Amino acid sequence: MKTRAAVAWQAAAPLTIEEVDLDGPRAGEVLVEVKATGICHTDWYTLSGADPEGLFPAILGHEGAGIVREVGAGVTSLKAGDHVIPLYTPECRQCKFCLSRKTNLCQKIRATQGKGLMPDGSSRFSLDGKPILHYMGTSTFANHIVVPEIALAKIREDAPFDVVCYIGCGVTTGIGAVIFSAKVERGANVAVFGLGGIGLNVIQGAKLAGADKIIGIDINPAREAMARQFGMTHFVNPKDVPNVVDAIVQLTDGGADFSFECIGNVDVMRQALECTHKGWGRSIIIGVAEAGAEIRTRPFQLVTGRKWEGSAFGGARGRTDVPKIVDWYMEKKINIDDLITHRLKLEDINEGFALMKRGESIRSVVVY
Amino acid sequence: MKTRAAVAWQAAAPLTIEEVDLDGPRAGEVLVEVKATGICHTDWYTLSGADPEGLFPAILGHEGAGIVREVGAGVTSLKAGDHVIPLYTPECRQCKFCLSRKTNLCQKIRATQGKGLMPDGSSRFSLDGKPILHYMGTSTFANHIVVPEIALAKIREDAPFDVVCYIGCGVTTGIGAVIFSAKVERGANVAVFGLGGIGLNVIQGAKLAGADKIIGIDINPAREAMARQFGMTHFVNPKDVPNVVDAIVQLTDGGADFSFECIGNVDVMRQALECTHKGWGRSIIIGVAEAGAEIRTRPFQLVTGRKWEGSAFGGARGRTDVPKIVDWYMEKKINIDDLITHRLKLEDINEGFALMKRGESIRSVVVY
Repeated sequence: MKTRAAVAWQAAAPLTIEEVDLDGPRAGEVLVEVKATGICHTDWYTLSGADPEGLFPAILGHEGAGIVREVGAGVTSLKAGDHVIPLYTPECRQCKFCLSRKTNLCQKIRATQGKGLMPDGSSRFSLDGKPILHYMGTSTFANHIVVPEIALAKIREDAPFDVVCYIGCGVTTGIGAVIFSAKVERGANVAVFGLGGIGLNVIQGAKLAGADKIIGIDINPAREAMARQFGMTHFVNPKDVPNVVDAIVQLTDGGADFSFECIGNVDVMRQALECTHKGWGRSIIIGVAEAGAEIRTRPFQLVTGRKWEGSAFGGARGRTDVPKIVDWYMEKKINIDDLITHRLKLEDINEGFALMKRGESIRSVVVY
Repeated sequence: MKTRAAVAWQAAAPLTIEEVDLDGPRAGEVLVEVKATGICHTDWYTLSGADPEGLFPAILGHEGAGIVREVGAGVTSLKAGDHVIPLYTPECRQCKFCLSRKTNLCQKIRATQGKGLMPDGSSRFSLDGKPILHYMGTSTFANHIVVPEIALAKIREDAPFDVVCYIGCGVTTGIGAVIFSAKVERGANVAVFGLGGIGLNVIQGAKLAGADKIIGIDINPAREAMARQFGMTHFVNPKDVPNVVDAIVQLTDGGADFSFECIGNVDVMRQALECTHKGWGRSIIIGVAEAGAEIRTRPFQLVTGRKWEGSAFGGARGRTDVPKIVDWYMEKKINIDDLITHRLKLEDINEGFALMKRGESIRSVVVY
């Protein structure tokens, strides 16, 4: 079939809208009509050329929601008409990782996904007979996609696509880091470094978990108001205090119980660790640092009881936990509406990237 | 009273044996006759002058066992005749840290202990009217000491002092890191970097925990035999393999579930982290690095599920857990006898340090 898609032909060039060819689903695969997709910094990171694993030409996008239109042979968990969120972190429920009960990082199709291919080693996208690569196993910048059954979360049908698509990455990454990775407990003090979209979702996750102090840290004072709306109780601007670590230690009588780095800056990751409480502080890295950058600290920080951890896709198991987060949104336990600041048509997707780069959007969503 | 002690007058100078003056126990304090003490690398670290927090003149030693001879006012948990192990990590059971249930790092007397003083800000030791400082709240290189009640673990009376003194530091640090800090589960794969005294105790802790593969890593092949006796199942000499991280990943089909750094080398700490399993590997730093040294890695290591942690005094609560470890020894669940390679008199303590520096002892014990 033909479908419309924004194609990334090479790094650091605008996307172009094309009618691409899409092969139908093979065994274990599912054809999905994407109804909406967020534009995420990770798409930009790859498009910019800074991602050492970025491959071109490809159809980017990994934060979508849509409807199953056709299933391949052997697909049992989904049927045409089901509403789904594509998962860049799949959940096969059979590999060593899924069965470990300790991680959400299913490795079943990791190798081919990393190469921009379906599990059988081929691409379903092409133009003029030349293949175009998939991206993160999802490629939600295409109106129709083919993805493995294990990479689709089935969600309730009353959830609006142009909102819950954000659960496909940002919302889950932030809220999940609190709920699934850190398992923040009621009454804990939490420090959140970086009040962009991920940071705001960490904040509402901390509120959902019943945290006591929720301290937001950002050098942009304009971000304070929205963060307070999402549950932030204290704001620290590093430009306004002599030492941001000391400021948080004082606010929390010894240090935060949990901290989250939502920027991708290795120096901030160190501050996030060192502002946690001696004896039990846990610091969770969410942000993606530039290639080659390294975190560092004195080992004494760890020997005296702090733990340095990370979270990918919020520690959420895609097929198991993503539908729960959709429920939380529908039950108004979490707020996504106010985070979606722009809705665009596919042909305006480059403007969506520009809004993000200029810091004018929290999340722009392409609605097909 | 007078008591014999080895006094460290200044950094990098031999200890001298003196008859020092010891004031009796004040309120909340206990007079202990030390019957035996181990000589630990930490004593040497301070004596060498490399410890930035080292103070002189002081009576070093922190790995002892002895008998209560007198208790001060208000002491209720101990009486004359009780057998005890002095604790450089006390357990007050009242401070924020003790009550957190998350750490063993009681902070009740941290400030004064760090200054070489009793909780009231004074020293009990003196010579010719000039005060001599305490060390780590214990000073077990003196035949008699005064320590706070909260810094004494009461132990069974049939335990031999010249063996269980080692539980005052090394044994607990190693076994405890496995049992109390990491909580290694049955069937886990464990990598142990450094097969000195701490490493051997980590190995027997892993065996006690029911670990599957217990991989020891050391550049000294002479250490292999003893490590196998303590439970090591695989030995890797970094000099014999192209890449020690790869070697461990291969041995464990993806990485160790737990690793322990028992050396104090920040480069090895990085290897210890990176050899653990994606998704759930946990690396515990036990070794004390040189002042100013920093650990470093790519944050991707943590974002993909590894956790970087530390352990001090094995995560053991002194008064609660140390008596249990004494029981484990008496019940022959753990082996300490073979680790105590030398027994010395106090006047030969400098020879004990020399044995350790030359790598000829695992643990030398001074018997009073």
